[in-house]
Amino acid sequence: MVSQEMYRLGANRSCIRDLFEYGLKKAAEIGKENVYDYSLGNPSVPAPEQVNETIRDLSLGDSLALHGYTPAPGAMDAREAVAQDLTARFGMPIAGADIFFHCGAAPALVSVLRALAVDGSEVITPAPFFPEYRVFSEGAGHKFVVIPAEEKTFQIDPEAFRSAVNEHTQAIILNSPNNPSGVVYSEETLKAIAAILEEKEAEYGHPIYIIADEPYRELVYEGLKVPFIPNLYRNTVVCYSWSKSLSLPGERIGYVCIPQQTEDHDALFAAMAGAARAAGHVCAPSLQQQIVRHCVGIMPNIEAYDRNRKLLYEKLTEYGYSCVKPQGAFYMFVKAPGGDAKAFSDAAKELNLLVVPGADFGCPGFFRLSTCVSYDMIVRSLPAFEQAIRKFC
Amino acid sequence: MVSQEMYRLGANRSCIRDLFEYGLKKAAEIGKENVYDYSLGNPSVPAPEQVNETIRDLSLGDSLALHGYTPAPGAMDAREAVAQDLTARFGMPIAGADIFFHCGAAPALVSVLRALAVDGSEVITPAPFFPEYRVFSEGAGHKFVVIPAEEKTFQIDPEAFRSAVNEHTQAIILNSPNNPSGVVYSEETLKAIAAILEEKEAEYGHPIYIIADEPYRELVYEGLKVPFIPNLYRNTVVCYSWSKSLSLPGERIGYVCIPQQTEDHDALFAAMAGAARAAGHVCAPSLQQQIVRHCVGIMPNIEAYDRNRKLLYEKLTEYGYSCVKPQGAFYMFVKAPGGDAKAFSDAAKELNLLVVPGADFGCPGFFRLSTCVSYDMIVRSLPAFEQAIRKFC
Repeated sequence: MVSQEMYRLGANRSCIRDLFEYGLKKAAEIGKENVYDYSLGNPSVPAPEQVNETIRDLSLGDSLALHGYTPAPGAMDAREAVAQDLTARFGMPIAGADIFFHCGAAPALVSVLRALAVDGSEVITPAPFFPEYRVFSEGAGHKFVVIPAEEKTFQIDPEAFRSAVNEHTQAIILNSPNNPSGVVYSEETLKAIAAILEEKEAEYGHPIYIIADEPYRELVYEGLKVPFIPNLYRNTVVCYSWSKSLSLPGERIGYVCIPQQTEDHDALFAAMAGAARAAGHVCAPSLQQQIVRHCVGIMPNIEAYDRNRKLLYEKLTEYGYSCVKPQGAFYMFVKAPGGDAKAFSDAAKELNLLVVPGADFGCPGFFRLSTCVSYDMIVRSLPAFEQAIRKFC
Repeated sequence: MVSQEMYRLGANRSCIRDLFEYGLKKAAEIGKENVYDYSLGNPSVPAPEQVNETIRDLSLGDSLALHGYTPAPGAMDAREAVAQDLTARFGMPIAGADIFFHCGAAPALVSVLRALAVDGSEVITPAPFFPEYRVFSEGAGHKFVVIPAEEKTFQIDPEAFRSAVNEHTQAIILNSPNNPSGVVYSEETLKAIAAILEEKEAEYGHPIYIIADEPYRELVYEGLKVPFIPNLYRNTVVCYSWSKSLSLPGERIGYVCIPQQTEDHDALFAAMAGAARAAGHVCAPSLQQQIVRHCVGIMPNIEAYDRNRKLLYEKLTEYGYSCVKPQGAFYMFVKAPGGDAKAFSDAAKELNLLVVPGADFGCPGFFRLSTCVSYDMIVRSLPAFEQAIRKFC
């Protein structure tokens, strides 16, 4: 007498969570220092000190204002601070009214997907992709279409993309810097995608939106710039979260930005707000809205993540692993020795090395490492990586 | 090309919000002190000082732990603190594992409703009711069935209730203390409802759940106790929020409690978790989880609300208004002079007195006052109340 679809979603836990909990149990048995857990993408760099200072300052102010309801899209001062930051950084006029705060990027994405769900609609994403995209898209009522991975570079093959688009396509989810590959889609890739979409929009006579899911935008290395997709393609909606950039993943603060240039801007904004309302969204946490208002310009300290990335990339390739060098985020997506990532992950588990097999990301031949871990753990884990590959070569 | 259902929900704002924004505009024109705004249920008593002290203490601790992801149902220490508090207060063994933190009571309710949505399912609520129950129930896919109000007492007429239950009934939403009436359902009422439900469960061979939506549980006057419905009826699920009791409405912290005694406990808990997952729930705000962990035993200061209630009830009845005396929450649901609450609300608006007509609450002959306002505003507004009734008598 309960919904079987909801039961299935609740009872079948993700293999990431399963591995993580296995790691906790194992650590209790053999000591935390002997388990090399690369499962979860939980930031290992604390929030900038300004965040906690802001919290203390705010807690001394007007309690009713601080903890009271805000309008559903958020407090206008906070929305405007975010809009001004975007405008200054990317040269596109964004207004406070184009921003809608959500409890993180996940419900932001869900609201946009539900707003775009019509009879027979489809949503496309290139592999590898964050596994919840499937849950969110199918849950909203879309057919979820995956473009096979371009495994040499993890960019997007324009011809594979073109053949996935049809008149039912409502949106493309792009996640750059990408979880799990760490790749940043190049301007060249994005321009090719934009050109195809413009052609298809004209052919089918309706907008096709890019949903740019960008929680890792500020986590890029070697001075690389992540293209702001609304500058390359008119019908782009941006979903964002401060989970990674301000290390606030538990606090659930993010937004949807629908730039004024977007076709059907007002209808799309209203439908997204309606989807949020139907999900029981009242407002994003009010204290967190004020934190991002005051801290929106603060860039994360990515030094530790970069150091991890360099060490792991150097050592793993030295041992014979094959991997596209990540340009952003805090993941590495490594080719599984032997070709079967599930088998490799199981073998690695026996060495207390926890890596996530790539099937749920749309790439069963790869495994993911979350590199937001301690440098010391990486150093301690290296012999296990060296041993694991030997089992398959 | 957007979902028409979501568009309608986003574009048709509630009349409460409309009135509230009208009030802000009017206040800018003629001065805040000349507008008597009874529209919104935003607490007017600040959070207990311990809440802001706890925030400061926590902000000095381990930032990674404080702001990091928790498991989807919440941090176990916080879940256990809530469970222990419930067990101590209501004498029913509740475990931490029975608690699932949500971003407020609204998404908690939505998750339970989605978990219970099956082909042809129905959800019942007695009028008057919080208008979003309709949005949440229909959005989940249920038929929404309203039992006409018992306007003399705003209790529930057992025979009207009995005739609304059928084999498709999956749940009853009960909100006590009630928004908008302020009434607390008596043990007698609840026992009558429970007896009917037990009879119908046996007849149809499946559980029918009471969903007890209880954000106002701690806001009761004259020492009244609100019955804990799981003690009266086995298949009760409790939805709660600290929005009102700790004056944290903007912070979005609440829970679902599914007591162990509940039929199909594990399946229902899993389906509720699955519904949360599909909506993009990752966890409730982590800082707020720790606040409720530390402040769960603090009772609200209801003195100001009680003072407002007494003054308004005394004066309004003196002027000739008719109203069931509220026992809890911070609302009064008053019979509209002339019988048409929309006409009365419009007339009151001309006196800068903003009251919400009751149609959306299922009672078009009544209007709602939110009494969580300043005492001074009530005093200033009394001549307008006196004038308004004269227009209809």
